[in-house]
Amino acid sequence: MQFADRLNNVETSAIRELFKLLGKPGIISFAGGFPDSAMFDVDGIREAVNTALTEEPGGALQYGATEGYNPLREQLAAFMTSKGNQGVTANDLIVTTGSQQALDLLGKTLVSPGDKVIVEGPTFLATIQCFRLYGAQLISAPVDGNGVKTDELEKLIEEHKPKFVYLIPTFGNPSGAMLSLERRQRVLEMAVKHNTLIVEDDPYGDLYFGEAPPPSLLALSASVPGSRELLVHCGSLSKVLSPGLRVGWMIGAAELLAKATMCKQFSDAHTSTFAQATAAQYLKAGRMPATLAKVRAVYAERATTMGNALRRELGDAIEFVQPQGGLFVWARLTGAGGKVADGGELAKRAIEKGVAFVPGAPFYATNPDHATLRLSFATVGVEKIEEGVGRLGAAV
Amino acid sequence: MQFADRLNNVETSAIRELFKLLGKPGIISFAGGFPDSAMFDVDGIREAVNTALTEEPGGALQYGATEGYNPLREQLAAFMTSKGNQGVTANDLIVTTGSQQALDLLGKTLVSPGDKVIVEGPTFLATIQCFRLYGAQLISAPVDGNGVKTDELEKLIEEHKPKFVYLIPTFGNPSGAMLSLERRQRVLEMAVKHNTLIVEDDPYGDLYFGEAPPPSLLALSASVPGSRELLVHCGSLSKVLSPGLRVGWMIGAAELLAKATMCKQFSDAHTSTFAQATAAQYLKAGRMPATLAKVRAVYAERATTMGNALRRELGDAIEFVQPQGGLFVWARLTGAGGKVADGGELAKRAIEKGVAFVPGAPFYATNPDHATLRLSFATVGVEKIEEGVGRLGAAV
Repeated sequence: MQFADRLNNVETSAIRELFKLLGKPGIISFAGGFPDSAMFDVDGIREAVNTALTEEPGGALQYGATEGYNPLREQLAAFMTSKGNQGVTANDLIVTTGSQQALDLLGKTLVSPGDKVIVEGPTFLATIQCFRLYGAQLISAPVDGNGVKTDELEKLIEEHKPKFVYLIPTFGNPSGAMLSLERRQRVLEMAVKHNTLIVEDDPYGDLYFGEAPPPSLLALSASVPGSRELLVHCGSLSKVLSPGLRVGWMIGAAELLAKATMCKQFSDAHTSTFAQATAAQYLKAGRMPATLAKVRAVYAERATTMGNALRRELGDAIEFVQPQGGLFVWARLTGAGGKVADGGELAKRAIEKGVAFVPGAPFYATNPDHATLRLSFATVGVEKIEEGVGRLGAAV
Repeated sequence: MQFADRLNNVETSAIRELFKLLGKPGIISFAGGFPDSAMFDVDGIREAVNTALTEEPGGALQYGATEGYNPLREQLAAFMTSKGNQGVTANDLIVTTGSQQALDLLGKTLVSPGDKVIVEGPTFLATIQCFRLYGAQLISAPVDGNGVKTDELEKLIEEHKPKFVYLIPTFGNPSGAMLSLERRQRVLEMAVKHNTLIVEDDPYGDLYFGEAPPPSLLALSASVPGSRELLVHCGSLSKVLSPGLRVGWMIGAAELLAKATMCKQFSDAHTSTFAQATAAQYLKAGRMPATLAKVRAVYAERATTMGNALRRELGDAIEFVQPQGGLFVWARLTGAGGKVADGGELAKRAIEKGVAFVPGAPFYATNPDHATLRLSFATVGVEKIEEGVGRLGAAV
């Protein structure tokens, strides 16, 4: 069978091979990118779907508008406003089938083969493959503990004149980094200066452990004239409520949303109204603040436990910035004292010791750093985190 | 903003303009392509989702496999088998976000810009635009009351060597036609002879009014050696249970499903597990046969009413084949006695008389027949059908 040429631009994931080993009995896995199923507010979701089926059975079960179910769009606009994003109305957003679909629609709507797109190095794996399927040529902008390095980003924008810049500014997957307020401001200013579209993917911003992170690029755009029209913001209920609903959203300029909606019409007609009506009722019932508080507290404890254990068990063999939110510790092997300095090599040894994580190299669109690794603390209880990191110490 | 080149291949729908007029008070609409919301088994779906949330909350709310939620894949395989499609197992299908996504994945997986695809003339509007977004060049094969004309189809295959042939063999949208058993056999034979992939889109096959239609191409492929590997079958729960769930599926060769699954991973990660677990419980509860019996009876009465009224009110101004299933009457204006012979013109006059339908020309990828129209009887009660067709008679 002869497949489309665009499939030549993607490769099957190296990580997929690793995941096959996870079935081994007794493995403690830091390899996932999932929220913890035990956090799901099953009672709240049950109540929401029953209310939806009682009060609006037609709306929940019939075909719906491609841009989204209006009661949900209104709830999401209110949710965004409650988080400091002023002036977001229902018409400013479209509902997507998870934020993965927002990425797909951006690729479909914006990327012609050969177009350049700047991403963080490292960035979300499915972003890399998603944009490559539309023929994008990806360029990596380097990241440190404060997020993307804006001086280098600006040089890359000047050099490559990208179709857009894709960032996960807050607790990104895999870097876990939080873009500083100063750099956020810089990103918006350079968007205007170079007339460059910026995509802010923000599935993790609600998962902060202490103080709230700096305002989103979207919120800040109100104070940088001309930047709002150049900003796309992608949100999701996947990490805070339930990935299984597949409810995400995209905020952007009206012209872009109109084209993305047309593309979505031919992608899946619309996002499940059954899931949308349920999400709308959930938000309407006012349960989200308590859910967020619970999730933040649990993940914060796990993140602290993992950070302390890594420092204790691996010492100078590893370096990392303690995450202030999200699901991940992003770390780098130093090779100190002749210890293993390759993430892929350590992953193999770790599996033998009974602990799994994901090596960091595949998260780079270009110029991989093979000393990196991603550890998720989200789905493992604190005792198992201690035990797993102990095994990792033995492996290193 | 500069959009992707692929957007130049699609046009905004002429039908969309017409739909704006539907808000006029008192309009009787035969314009929809929806099932009737009053047919939805709300109690059955409520029971199914509550069972899913009680018995498998993690499965219903967590991330799931891209190829589909296994309990649903098993139920769908059993459903297909119960309809005479022998030998379909869970591994032979992937779940899609409605069958619209199956079309999108076929485009993404198979179509390089400039590739030719043969469709029926007329065919489903969203198919035309979906494939064009991937750069397909569409060729229309003519249709009569017995479905696609296989002699002409074979000539087109020989001439154009298409990437694949897309057919809606059973009660297709908009033609309502049922491909005869003899022609089904021919289609499979020519697939093998010319090594041509055939896509059978089958969202309406369960909605028959009297005798069951001939076996699906999928079922028949068992008796045509070599044809099974060249056949893709798309199914959907949208027309028989609920479109809002967005649950469809695609059956095909393992190699194709693997590539489509990879593409789906970057399109929406997976179809809502919340909807998938609900659909699985619904099928498991054994409610589908009663639901189908009810839906068939209601639509059959409406189809009969509309056919009789059209013959009575429009006489020799119109010709059509009485549908044996599905949601649509596909008709052609004859212009007899100097009456209006243009579907678009009649649509405008009809709106003024208080009745709406969709002119047929936009359903042709090439060579539109402007005398055609599509009338849906699905969402209108029998009395309103009589009244609406009366208005249509006045308009003609």
